[in-house]
Amino acid sequence: MSLAPPTPRWRERLHIVIFEADTAGGKAFDVALLIAIVASVLCVLLESVATIDRQYRQALILAEWVFTVLFTIEYILRLLSVGKPWRYALSFLGVVDLLAILPTYISLLLPGSQSLVVVRALRLLRVFRIFKLRRFLAEAEALKRALLNSRAKITVFLSSVLVCVVITGAAMHLIEGSKSGFTSIPQSMYWAIVTMTTVGYGDIAPVTPLGKGMAALIMVFGYSMIVVPTGIISAEIASANARISTQACPECSREGHDANAVHCKFCGARL
Amino acid sequence: MSLAPPTPRWRERLHIVIFEADTAGGKAFDVALLIAIVASVLCVLLESVATIDRQYRQALILAEWVFTVLFTIEYILRLLSVGKPWRYALSFLGVVDLLAILPTYISLLLPGSQSLVVVRALRLLRVFRIFKLRRFLAEAEALKRALLNSRAKITVFLSSVLVCVVITGAAMHLIEGSKSGFTSIPQSMYWAIVTMTTVGYGDIAPVTPLGKGMAALIMVFGYSMIVVPTGIISAEIASANARISTQACPECSREGHDANAVHCKFCGARL
Amino acid sequence: MSLAPPTPRWRERLHIVIFEADTAGGKAFDVALLIAIVASVLCVLLESVATIDRQYRQALILAEWVFTVLFTIEYILRLLSVGKPWRYALSFLGVVDLLAILPTYISLLLPGSQSLVVVRALRLLRVFRIFKLRRFLAEAEALKRALLNSRAKITVFLSSVLVCVVITGAAMHLIEGSKSGFTSIPQSMYWAIVTMTTVGYGDIAPVTPLGKGMAALIMVFGYSMIVVPTGIISAEIASANARISTQACPECSREGHDANAVHCKFCGARL
Amino acid sequence: MSLAPPTPRWRERLHIVIFEADTAGGKAFDVALLIAIVASVLCVLLESVATIDRQYRQALILAEWVFTVLFTIEYILRLLSVGKPWRYALSFLGVVDLLAILPTYISLLLPGSQSLVVVRALRLLRVFRIFKLRRFLAEAEALKRALLNSRAKITVFLSSVLVCVVITGAAMHLIEGSKSGFTSIPQSMYWAIVTMTTVGYGDIAPVTPLGKGMAALIMVFGYSMIVVPTGIISAEIASANARISTQACPECSREGHDANAVHCKFCGARL
Repeated sequence: MSLAPPTPRWRERLHIVIFEADTAGGKAFDVALLIAIVASVLCVLLESVATIDRQYRQALILAEWVFTVLFTIEYILRLLSVGKPWRYALSFLGVVDLLAILPTYISLLLPGSQSLVVVRALRLLRVFRIFKLRRFLAEAEALKRALLNSRAKITVFLSSVLVCVVITGAAMHLIEGSKSGFTSIPQSMYWAIVTMTTVGYGDIAPVTPLGKGMAALIMVFGYSMIVVPTGIISAEIASANARISTQACPECSREGHDANAVHCKFCGARL
Repeated sequence: MSLAPPTPRWRERLHIVIFEADTAGGKAFDVALLIAIVASVLCVLLESVATIDRQYRQALILAEWVFTVLFTIEYILRLLSVGKPWRYALSFLGVVDLLAILPTYISLLLPGSQSLVVVRALRLLRVFRIFKLRRFLAEAEALKRALLNSRAKITVFLSSVLVCVVITGAAMHLIEGSKSGFTSIPQSMYWAIVTMTTVGYGDIAPVTPLGKGMAALIMVFGYSMIVVPTGIISAEIASANARISTQACPECSREGHDANAVHCKFCGARL
Repeated sequence: MSLAPPTPRWRERLHIVIFEADTAGGKAFDVALLIAIVASVLCVLLESVATIDRQYRQALILAEWVFTVLFTIEYILRLLSVGKPWRYALSFLGVVDLLAILPTYISLLLPGSQSLVVVRALRLLRVFRIFKLRRFLAEAEALKRALLNSRAKITVFLSSVLVCVVITGAAMHLIEGSKSGFTSIPQSMYWAIVTMTTVGYGDIAPVTPLGKGMAALIMVFGYSMIVVPTGIISAEIASANARISTQACPECSREGHDANAVHCKFCGARL
Repeated sequence: MSLAPPTPRWRERLHIVIFEADTAGGKAFDVALLIAIVASVLCVLLESVATIDRQYRQALILAEWVFTVLFTIEYILRLLSVGKPWRYALSFLGVVDLLAILPTYISLLLPGSQSLVVVRALRLLRVFRIFKLRRFLAEAEALKRALLNSRAKITVFLSSVLVCVVITGAAMHLIEGSKSGFTSIPQSMYWAIVTMTTVGYGDIAPVTPLGKGMAALIMVFGYSMIVVPTGIISAEIASANARISTQACPECSREGHDANAVHCKFCGARL
């Protein structure tokens, strides 16, 4: 689209394979990448299980390095295939791609179990690469827009819930005292959130009749409150569905036609 | 519809009774079959309760064989009544029908408690025969379509949840250490799913302040996230309902017009 | 409306006070009745608390008899004020009214703690009298219609859930064995329901890795499934709201006007 | 708008800074106030944690007094800047503003740990001042209206749930006896609410087969019931969204027309 010198053929083809999913090569690359990411994440998961780690430590470390080298090659190819490497390197996905390979190399220079463990968790961000697959991007976009449109409503809702949680927490701390686990206001707030989101672990539960009565009120009230965002988002998605490709009729300028309409449904004119 | 030789009368009548529910005979057959399936499933349930099994073992084994013989006769009649027996035998319901009777016969040839128990669970698939009853098939169809239409949205949503679960699991494993049950990342992921779906058993629960704070965040965030599919499916069903009051165009016989449409939106003809 | 002899004035006035809520007298009667019902139910609740029952037994028994006598007078007045007493006595609310006073009298003839306790629970049905208050009847009607309209969808949904519960229960019984509380298929089914409805007591919870994995699957799957009725009912209520007093325009016969519309919104003609 | 003598310039400017958020000064004031409120609430939360209170008691008491003095100055400025101070002082937010500063002063006159603790909880109401920020007021208004519009439906729904809870509680008290925690009807009602809202602590759980069966029924039934308000509110918000794109009629200036209306639905004038 710009008047810059034409990109070399090999870079163009690399770009299509790596960044696009329309060609056979691009699709194969995406699927292979997805499998590699899932496999590497599985390795991290298995490594954290003590019994498995003891038995297959060598295999897991090997797999770890194979994946790291593969992802490093991929990262370098990405940098080569784009016109403006810095732009990619500083984009969200570029940073995630780098973070996915860095930790393993750093673990060579700075041996030490502590730092290694912290680093391992960061490598899990690699999973976000799954979203690079084009197929579901449109849907993800639609969901994101619905969430963004109801941003203000959700903020109001969450801050009301937070105020409720603080006041409820303080009240339960006063009512229950420190006998039944309500040892401080933050602790009681944790209980209030566990209760209002209907998770209900049961590690902290009221024991006094007054506390139980108030807990019952909070459950019903909180449950009714938490039901609000469903309504907000569902209405948002419904209206987003309805809004898709609304165009005015050139004859009678009326809107509200379906996406697949050829003629105006009110006057019959061609759209 | 084909020009094949006419099917014999007895087979036609058998087909109507077994496969259709419009005649009195067909309806009676369907209801009797439903009762037999529920009764046979109840027997399997009772057999698994140790105290009942000890007392009524003879009666339960008898009932088991009575139901198996009945279902075998039904299976043979189904094979006889259809024009292309193989097509039925290889269809999903045909395979389920066969699986519903096979285990009991196999248990004769291969005695041994182990295999018997595994086989028992398969027999429960028999319950799916309930869906052969025509009355609710249209509704099931509508539900299935709503789910299929929102397939892509749900895939995006579930994969986002999965990424959250993996990262949350790794973070909680680091924060809580192996003291309070977060012994490995898969174990922490199990906790994250139990928490995000608001099930909240309480068998694993955070004990450190940081872990509790993060759990509270996950609950609120996860709860808000899990609320999304409700919106998706509810919007889908709503738009499916709205689409119902449609009529076919007299010119091009296409459907899908709005309730307040005057002209066909495809060819412009007056509806 | 009928040509029957005119009802005596006193009966007419009694009928207005007892059965209608439009006049000042009728409203006062309804509110007093509501208070009496709530108070009598509170007495039953307090009686069941061992410590309170021991201290205030005399007062509670007295209150019990006062309420019973009041409700008996009310029942007789209702019978007197209606034209066809039998019709009222056999209606749902008439039977509930009788059941609300009978138990206390029966307890005189048949002393014995066992039967008394059973009877006490029945008296709680008295609370349904609250619904006799007219104010909310229209809303209750709308809710009931929405539920009835989605009856078929809900039946399909609940039977699918039941099949899932049976198969899940059998599978978990096989996987977990009788170690961790999954002692029989019915017991495992109870666990499956507790999990799928996201209640999650934690009295039964999987302990094997395979069981935990399957439980996680059931949670996500079950949670997504249970989300379906929300969509069904919400769509039903939405379309019920939209359907309210839709009438065709006499000029252009187009529908879709609001309930408070005076003119057709398409051609401006008077509706 | 009134013909009263013009307000002095300093009061007008003060009013703009304190009560409005459109100017740079007003915005800065609002943000500073929000930070101060959150910080003061955090202090109260930290004070309730025994270990933190012991270590930083002096700093927390100091912060407490700094915030109280700041909020007192703010309260006085508010009284000075409005035309009718009494109207503000008696409004909901005025009373909350006063309650936010009173407790600390009262604790000077009436020393004693008991009263102090009670008073501390009230101070948390200060958080409601967050809602004075204009940005989200419109959204809060929309949510409030949706809730108010469905008030009648929600009342009917909650009273039905309450009747279910009472009857369920009585039934479970009879079935389970006082063995497994169902010691009284109010206690069983607490369990019923914990179960129906799907919180499920697990501190009280049925142990008899009959009790478990009934609990399973209540879960499925209760879960299906509790799903109703979602539908109500979601439909309400959806119809509120649909009503938004309205314009006033040029003839009769009434609002509430549909997006695709050509004529005013009240007077028939062209829009």
